[in-house]
Amino acid sequence: MQMMAPKAVVLLSGGIDSATCAAVARSRGFAVAGLTVDYGQRHRLELEAAAKIASYLKLEAHYVVAVDLRAIGKSALLGSEDVPKDRSEAEISQGIPATYVPARNTILLSLALALAESLGAADIFIGANVLDYSGYPDCRPEFLQTFEKLANLATKAGVEGNTQFRVHAPLLFLTKAEIIRLAISLGVDLSLTMSCYDPTPAGLACGRCDSCQIRRRAFSQTGVPDPTRYVCS
Amino acid sequence: MQMMAPKAVVLLSGGIDSATCAAVARSRGFAVAGLTVDYGQRHRLELEAAAKIASYLKLEAHYVVAVDLRAIGKSALLGSEDVPKDRSEAEISQGIPATYVPARNTILLSLALALAESLGAADIFIGANVLDYSGYPDCRPEFLQTFEKLANLATKAGVEGNTQFRVHAPLLFLTKAEIIRLAISLGVDLSLTMSCYDPTPAGLACGRCDSCQIRRRAFSQTGVPDPTRYVCS
Repeated sequence: MQMMAPKAVVLLSGGIDSATCAAVARSRGFAVAGLTVDYGQRHRLELEAAAKIASYLKLEAHYVVAVDLRAIGKSALLGSEDVPKDRSEAEISQGIPATYVPARNTILLSLALALAESLGAADIFIGANVLDYSGYPDCRPEFLQTFEKLANLATKAGVEGNTQFRVHAPLLFLTKAEIIRLAISLGVDLSLTMSCYDPTPAGLACGRCDSCQIRRRAFSQTGVPDPTRYVCS
Repeated sequence: MQMMAPKAVVLLSGGIDSATCAAVARSRGFAVAGLTVDYGQRHRLELEAAAKIASYLKLEAHYVVAVDLRAIGKSALLGSEDVPKDRSEAEISQGIPATYVPARNTILLSLALALAESLGAADIFIGANVLDYSGYPDCRPEFLQTFEKLANLATKAGVEGNTQFRVHAPLLFLTKAEIIRLAISLGVDLSLTMSCYDPTPAGLACGRCDSCQIRRRAFSQTGVPDPTRYVCS
């Protein structure tokens, strides 16, 4: 008798981290449903990238849900102000950046929890990472652990005791270079991913925002060619 | 010198509880921003009721944000199945009903947190209530306390230490009849509120869903006339 694979929900943004996270979940034997949240982000090409990655990784399903955070939140990622460019490595690693979106990962995980409960999945994967993005409070382990506790209090499936929700963040303590190596070892086509916070309408990455700089540096460290098409080289 | 009133975000659904909760927040001296979430609920007249209540209570602001949970969640309130009708008091008080929406209050509070952080508010009010709706796991005090903890871990404002988020649920241990008395004492016009899970397009309440039954029984207990227009009397 063939066992049914357990289901997992993976938050899929279109970047390297979430694509790698989806590949990790699949490699651990889960039947993966990708969830992409269109929250009004400036970098809308991410949404197309997420769809391509879901298709490339042959995920079981790919859900897209829209919630327009521009109505209630301020952030450079929502277009409230300019995306910072050309910051030094020291500047990038210090403090919480202007690209912080209020309560974003709380909202994303809440939606993932709703989908997981509806699908009968107990496992939620998020590509959060503390090393390169230490500035975001909602990428820290204490946040993720508390969300996991909340998930089991918040839901019918958690309270009735037949489901123990788990929040997995397999990339949490990896460097960006290590994530790239892991992605390649799992067969992820990184040319499909989009990291830039402020790409051109034609899909070229700016090369100068924090996210582009972190990506470029990491590719350079691994010695793997960066397949991204940048405006400036 | 006049002190600026502290800001609070109140989740405003259009029902009695959230309207009363908004009036409580205002009476405690907060400058209140109402937040209504259009999550694809079957009872869409709630959204109109919420706008009328915000206007009647002269809230500082009223925000509406749409997130279509029909894409990811199953519930009688989302139209996935019929709304239960004519259940006995014993049936209503037993178990988690079909109108449970996966992770709803987690999602609503996450959005309220995003708005609160953007507005510089530390206080979030929700009209959750354990007595009449003991079936919903995300109305329980342990859920609300854990969300409060999460809010302070999740946000820039919480982590940088200048804001201590608080989740208030002033109606948590009141009966529906007590809530109605409180609402009237605070001058809430209950004719503006909409409780029915399955109203007619013309805005008549069904009178038979759990929410209508709880409302009718509570009005009857208080001796106050119920201003609701029901299909059946």
